[in-house]
Amino acid sequence: MKHLILTVFALFVSMTGIAQTLKTPTLDDLMWGGTNYWNLQPKTPATAWWGDALVHTDVEACTIKFDARPTQPSRNRMATNCLFTLDDVNAVLPEGDKMRTLQNAVFPDGSQTIVRLTSDNSLFLYDWSARSIVWRVDRVRGAQAASFSQSAKATAYVKDDNLFVRNAEGRDAQLSTDGSRQIVYGQSVHRQEFGIEDGLFWSPKGSALAFYRMDQTMVTDFPLVELPLDPGADEPGKVATVAQLAPEAYPMAGMDIHKVTVGVYNMATGKTVYLRTPEVRTEFHEGGEAVYFSNICWSPDEKYIFIQELPRTQDRSDLVVYSAETGERLAVLNTETNARFVEPQHPLTFIPWDPSSFIFQSEKDGFNHYYVGQLAPDARSIKSWRQLTSGEYEDLELLGFNTQTKAIIASTNESGHIRENVYAIDYKTGRRTLLDNGVGVHRCMGLSENGLYYVDRWSKPDLYREVDVMPTSVGKKVQFPVGTAINTLQQNVESPWKDYTMPEVEGGRITAADGVTPLYYRMVLPVGFDPTKKYPTVVYVYGGPHATNVKESWCFQMRNWEAHMANRGYLLFILDNRGSGDRGFDFESCTHRHLGDIEMEDQIKGVEFLKTLPYVDADRMGVHGWSFGGFMTTNLMCSYPDVFKVGVAGGPVIDWRYYEAMYGERYMDAPQDNPEGYKSTSLVGKAKNLKGRLQIIVGYNDPTCVLQHNLAFLRAAEDAGTQPDYFVYPGQGHNMMGKDMVHLHERITRYFDDYLK
Amino acid sequence: MKHLILTVFALFVSMTGIAQTLKTPTLDDLMWGGTNYWNLQPKTPATAWWGDALVHTDVEACTIKFDARPTQPSRNRMATNCLFTLDDVNAVLPEGDKMRTLQNAVFPDGSQTIVRLTSDNSLFLYDWSARSIVWRVDRVRGAQAASFSQSAKATAYVKDDNLFVRNAEGRDAQLSTDGSRQIVYGQSVHRQEFGIEDGLFWSPKGSALAFYRMDQTMVTDFPLVELPLDPGADEPGKVATVAQLAPEAYPMAGMDIHKVTVGVYNMATGKTVYLRTPEVRTEFHEGGEAVYFSNICWSPDEKYIFIQELPRTQDRSDLVVYSAETGERLAVLNTETNARFVEPQHPLTFIPWDPSSFIFQSEKDGFNHYYVGQLAPDARSIKSWRQLTSGEYEDLELLGFNTQTKAIIASTNESGHIRENVYAIDYKTGRRTLLDNGVGVHRCMGLSENGLYYVDRWSKPDLYREVDVMPTSVGKKVQFPVGTAINTLQQNVESPWKDYTMPEVEGGRITAADGVTPLYYRMVLPVGFDPTKKYPTVVYVYGGPHATNVKESWCFQMRNWEAHMANRGYLLFILDNRGSGDRGFDFESCTHRHLGDIEMEDQIKGVEFLKTLPYVDADRMGVHGWSFGGFMTTNLMCSYPDVFKVGVAGGPVIDWRYYEAMYGERYMDAPQDNPEGYKSTSLVGKAKNLKGRLQIIVGYNDPTCVLQHNLAFLRAAEDAGTQPDYFVYPGQGHNMMGKDMVHLHERITRYFDDYLK
Repeated sequence: MKHLILTVFALFVSMTGIAQTLKTPTLDDLMWGGTNYWNLQPKTPATAWWGDALVHTDVEACTIKFDARPTQPSRNRMATNCLFTLDDVNAVLPEGDKMRTLQNAVFPDGSQTIVRLTSDNSLFLYDWSARSIVWRVDRVRGAQAASFSQSAKATAYVKDDNLFVRNAEGRDAQLSTDGSRQIVYGQSVHRQEFGIEDGLFWSPKGSALAFYRMDQTMVTDFPLVELPLDPGADEPGKVATVAQLAPEAYPMAGMDIHKVTVGVYNMATGKTVYLRTPEVRTEFHEGGEAVYFSNICWSPDEKYIFIQELPRTQDRSDLVVYSAETGERLAVLNTETNARFVEPQHPLTFIPWDPSSFIFQSEKDGFNHYYVGQLAPDARSIKSWRQLTSGEYEDLELLGFNTQTKAIIASTNESGHIRENVYAIDYKTGRRTLLDNGVGVHRCMGLSENGLYYVDRWSKPDLYREVDVMPTSVGKKVQFPVGTAINTLQQNVESPWKDYTMPEVEGGRITAADGVTPLYYRMVLPVGFDPTKKYPTVVYVYGGPHATNVKESWCFQMRNWEAHMANRGYLLFILDNRGSGDRGFDFESCTHRHLGDIEMEDQIKGVEFLKTLPYVDADRMGVHGWSFGGFMTTNLMCSYPDVFKVGVAGGPVIDWRYYEAMYGERYMDAPQDNPEGYKSTSLVGKAKNLKGRLQIIVGYNDPTCVLQHNLAFLRAAEDAGTQPDYFVYPGQGHNMMGKDMVHLHERITRYFDDYLK
Repeated sequence: MKHLILTVFALFVSMTGIAQTLKTPTLDDLMWGGTNYWNLQPKTPATAWWGDALVHTDVEACTIKFDARPTQPSRNRMATNCLFTLDDVNAVLPEGDKMRTLQNAVFPDGSQTIVRLTSDNSLFLYDWSARSIVWRVDRVRGAQAASFSQSAKATAYVKDDNLFVRNAEGRDAQLSTDGSRQIVYGQSVHRQEFGIEDGLFWSPKGSALAFYRMDQTMVTDFPLVELPLDPGADEPGKVATVAQLAPEAYPMAGMDIHKVTVGVYNMATGKTVYLRTPEVRTEFHEGGEAVYFSNICWSPDEKYIFIQELPRTQDRSDLVVYSAETGERLAVLNTETNARFVEPQHPLTFIPWDPSSFIFQSEKDGFNHYYVGQLAPDARSIKSWRQLTSGEYEDLELLGFNTQTKAIIASTNESGHIRENVYAIDYKTGRRTLLDNGVGVHRCMGLSENGLYYVDRWSKPDLYREVDVMPTSVGKKVQFPVGTAINTLQQNVESPWKDYTMPEVEGGRITAADGVTPLYYRMVLPVGFDPTKKYPTVVYVYGGPHATNVKESWCFQMRNWEAHMANRGYLLFILDNRGSGDRGFDFESCTHRHLGDIEMEDQIKGVEFLKTLPYVDADRMGVHGWSFGGFMTTNLMCSYPDVFKVGVAGGPVIDWRYYEAMYGERYMDAPQDNPEGYKSTSLVGKAKNLKGRLQIIVGYNDPTCVLQHNLAFLRAAEDAGTQPDYFVYPGQGHNMMGKDMVHLHERITRYFDDYLK
C-alpha cells in the first residue's frame, strides 16, 4: 500500500521546558458546549458589506474597516470611521424597546446610509446620517419560520402552523388556516433533501411570495416521546411529571410519502395561486411522474418559477418552468437521467448582467460543474446551453458575481482534493483565476455588493485562522492585484489551545480497496508520541454521502475530541472512504444499492495501513462515528468482529428500511426494488456477530434516525445473545447540542478508557 | 453488632476428588428461561384432589396416588389404580379435537366419577366410569380474562375489551358494548393493589356474576412505545418496520384516578345491576368518601356482596355490604382506621359449617390476624366479632378448612420469622396445632375436598425439596397422627445442580439501625471459599413492602444468579431491611412518607457487618436490585457514593411522583400532602451525587415503573455531569421473561466483572 504523508507538523512539541507550562485541555476547554470553550475562542469581529465598504458590526458600534469606494460626501460620519453607535440607535427607539447588539446589522444598499436592525420589539431601518428611524414594524415573535423581503419590506412567517405575511405597514395577512403538524406551510419539505433548507421564497422585487405546502396526513407517524420541561418547577431544567407523545410524520423507504405543492401569494391582489404541479401519487410506485419538487427559483422579472422535479425513483430530474401568475406548468426545459440517481441540490442562479441566462449545476459529466443556459423569450425552452466549467474536480460553492468584470466567484477543489479555494470564472470563456493563495481551505464570508471584494476566512494544517479582504477583479486594470490580501482582519490567529498540550497531526493518502482511488486521511498522534511505543488506536468515521472529514484546514480538520483522546494516549485515524463527498459522482455513488460495503472495504484498507505502523497496537483498535458514521461503526463492529475491539456508534442507521424515503431510496433504491440489498446491509441481521464492546448512543428525540433503528438492533442482539451497550439523551435530537456535548464525549472517552486502554 | 449465624452448610464442598467431576453451572443451567434449566428441573408430578383421594394427573393418565376414602363400588377402574388414560378421553372426543395432556384435570366432586378437561377445542366433563362426555361447550379463545363457574357450567370472559358469558349450553351473552382500552370490564382494577388480581367473581352457586368496570378515560396516558412483531417476516421474532404507540392509562400519585364500579349480572334474567357504590371523585382530594373498591366477596346465599372500600387517603377501610339483587348499599359493617394506612388484602372468607360467619383479616393489632365476624340475619350489621388469632407473628395464607374437625388450615410464621408452617386453628378456641415439622418453608399445594389432607411441598436450607401428603385432623380420633407425612410423593429431592459447583450459603441475623429489631440475611460464599482471601461483595436488595428475600427455604431462598456470581468469585449478601414484609405492620410501615431512608439505614448496617468479616473486600462492594430494589440500588449508589463502587438497578423507581397513586399514596401520602417527603426521596435530585458505576436496566414496555423514571434520572445525571449507564429490553415489561432472563443476568454479571472484580 502506497501512502504519502502530505504534511507533518507539531503544534507544540511538548518535550522540553515549555511542556511544564502547558495545561492538559479538558472537554470543557475543547468542546462546543463546554464551560470554557467560548472563553478560549479568539474573537472574530462580525462584518457586513455596505456597498464595497466593509463594516465592523460590533456590539457597540458599526465602524468602517475597509473602504474601496470613491468618497461620497453624504456619508457625514465617515471621517470618524464610526458610522453609528448602539447608543445612537437606542436614542431614537421608543421607550422600552432596546437594541442589545449591532452585530447583526445589515446594510441593504451601498448607496444609502441605511442599516436594517432588529431590536427587542422592532424590525426597522435606521438612517445614521439623519439619525432617525425611516421605517419600522413590530417584530414577528414565536415564528416557526420567517423570511424578510427587503424589496417589499415584508416578512413572511409561519406561526401555529399557519402562514402569514406582515407587510411594510405592519399589517398581517393570513394565507392559510388549515396548517397543522400534518399540513405544513412555508417550511422545508422532503425532509431537507435535494438541497431544500426552507419553504419561503420571496420574488426578487418582493411582489410575490412562493411557499411550500406539504400534506403529510398520509405519512405514518413514528411515535417519538419527549420529556417536556416543568414550567412550575423550583429548579430550572426539571422535567414535567409525565412524558408526552411527540409524533413525527416519517415516510420510511418504500412507504407512503407526503404530497408537496407550491403556492404563490401575490402581494398586490392578496390572492394565492397554486402551481399546477402534477398530482402526487403518495404510495410507492415506479412511474415517472414527479413527486419531489426541489430548488424553487424565481426569474428576475418575477414572471416565472423554476422547479427541479423528480419521480419517486430519483433516476431523473426535470427542470420545469411555471407561470407565477397563473400557476400553469409551461414547459420541461431540461431533463437529466442517471441509472443510479440524479440529485439536484442547487436552484438556478440568474446572471445579474444577462437576466435571461442562468447557471445550472449538474454532476452529469461526473463532477459538479456549471452550465449556462439561456431562456427563450417566452421561457418555454432553452435557447442555448454551454458548459462553463469542466475537469476532474468539484465546483463547490457558487458565491456570487463580480458585476464589473462579469465573472462568477466560486469555490472549487481544483487545486487539490482536500483543498477549497476561491476562483473568479470568466463568464464568457470559463477561464478560472485563483483568487487566494491556493492552499488550505478558504471560506468566503461575504462578497461586497458588486462582488469586487470578499472576506476570506481560511486556514491550513499549521495555521489556525486568518481573515483577509481579497479582491476579485481579474484581467482588467484593477485597483488591487489578484491573490494578495488588501486588508487583513486577523493575521495568523493562534490556536485557542496554545497554552495546552495539543497533538501532532499528520495528513496523508492511501489507495482505496479498488487499487486505484486515492483516499485522504488524518492521523492524530498521541500527545508525547514515542514511535517506539504501541498505542491504542481509534478510527473515527462518517463515510456517508455529501460529507468529508479530511480537509487541508487547521490540523486537517481535526475534531477537538481527537485532541482530548490524544492527550489520553490514543492515536486517532480518520479516512474519507469512497461514498463520501467532494470527489465526484462515481466516488460518491459507487455504493449505490449496497450502502456500507465499499465504505467498509476502504476503512479496512485504512486499518491495513495502520497495521504497518509499528506504533499502532493492532490488538487495541476502536471505532467511533455518528449517524452514517454510527452505521459504519456498528457495521464494522459486526462485520469485522476480530478487527475492532471497541466501538461507539452515535445515532446509527441500523436498517435502511427504517430511514426516510427521500435519502434512503436515492442511495438504496426502494426496498421493493432492492430487497437483497436492504437485507444484506441491515445490521439487524448482523447483531448476532457482535464480539467486541459496542455502545450505541442516541438522542431520545431523534427525528432523523428514529428510535426504531437502535431498538430493533437491541432486540436483535438480545435475541441472538450478544451484548451491545446503550445510552440515550432525553430531549436531544439527531445531534447533541449544548453542554450535553461535553457529557457525551466524556462518555465516549470513558468507554474507550474502560475497554481499549 | 451482634449477629447470629443460623445455619452453615455446604452443598458440595468441592475441594476433593469429587470436584473434578463437577461442572460450573452457566446461566442457561441456572436461570428460568435458560436453555438447560428445564432439563435439569426434577419432575414434580401434577396432582389433584378427587374428594380425599389424591390423583396423579400425568400427561398420559390419571392415577390414584393416595386414597383415604371408604371404598366406593361405583369407581369401577380403581382396582387398577388408573382412573383413565389420555387415549380413553381422546376416543370419545370428536374428530379433530384432541387432548394433549391430562395434567390440568380437575375433579369437581369427590362423589362423582367426573373430571373437567380442556381439549384443543372443548371444555368438557368426562365420566370415566361411563367412558363418556357428559357435558361440553366450545372453548373460549383469545380472551383477555376468563373465569369458569363449575356450578353454572358457565364461562365469563372478556374479549375485544367487552364482557361475555358463555352459558352451559354454549350460548354467548354480551354484557357490555362500550369496552375499550379506557373502559375496562372484568379485569383487575386499581392497578392490582389491595390484593386485587382479577375482575370476574362468580356467585357461589353460579346464579350471578359480579364484575369490575373501570372507567379510566380521565386518567393521563403514559406514552409507551412498542415494537410489534412483523407477521410477514422471513425470520420469527423480527420486529415490524415502525414502532407503535401503546399508551398506558397511568394515574400517577396526586393525579386524577380512574372510576371503578361493580356490576352484577343475573344468569336467570340476563340483566345487569350496578352496585350503588358512592360516586367517585377522580381528582385528588382529602375527602373521606370511597374511591377504591376492593376484596369483592359473595355471601354463601348469593344475596349479598361485600366490598372493602377506601378513601383516596387510604387511612380508612370500610367493610360495606350491598344487595346483589338491587345493588343497594345496605350498611357499613366495620371501619378500620390508621394514621399511616389501612391496607385490606383479603376478601371475607365464609365458614363452610357456619355460613353467617366469616373470617376477616386485619393488621389492626400490629400483625395480620384472623377475626371471626357473625352477620346479623338481615346482614345490616355484625352480630359479634371475636379475634381468632393473635401474637407477634403473621398469619400468612388462609388455605381452607377441615370441615370434619371444624378447623381453619392456614400458614403462619409463628415458629420463626423466616419460616412458613401450616397450622390447624380450632374454630372455637383459636388453638393452633402445627401440622408439619415446624422448620423450613412449607407450601400447601392443595387441600383435599373436606380439608382432611393437603399436599405439603417444602424445603429447608439444606434440603432442596420434599413433597408429602399431610393430615390435618387434630384433637379427635383420626386416621393419621398429626405432623407425620402419610404419603411421600417426593423424598429429599436433590438439587437440580448437584453435578455442578454450587456455593455454601449461610443464613444469619443482625440488628437493624434502630438497635432493636432483628433482621435476617443470607450470605452466599464464593465457590472454593478461602477465608484468608478478600472477595468482591455484592449486596442484592429489594427492601420494599410485602416482599421478603430471606426465608428458611433451600439455601435461604437463594436466587440462582447468586450461585452464578459465587462461581465467579463473588460473595453475595442479602438482607431483609425494615419496610419489607411478613414482620408486622410497624416493621413494614415505619418507612411511611419517606420511602428509602430507613431501608437504606438498615442496608448500611448490613454493610457494617460485612466490613467486620475479614474475607469481605470493603473496597469492592456492589449492589443490585430490581423495581423497589432498583430504587434502593440507585438510592444507595447516590446516597452512599463512597460505600458502593458498582450498582445495577433494574426497573427502578426514581421519583414517587411518577409512580401510581394507589401504591404510592399509601406509602408516601399524596405529593400535595407530603411535598418534602417526595422531594427528599427523589433520586432526580440525587443523580448529581453519583460517583461509582451504575447501570440502569429496564423493560422498554414497563407499564408499572414507566420510562418516566429512568429517562428523568438520565436527564438529571446528564444535566449534573454524572455518568450512569443504561440498557433497555424492547418488548419486556417490568420484569424480564423467557430467554431475556439469561441475557439480562449475563449483562448484570458482566457489569460487576467489568468494574468490581
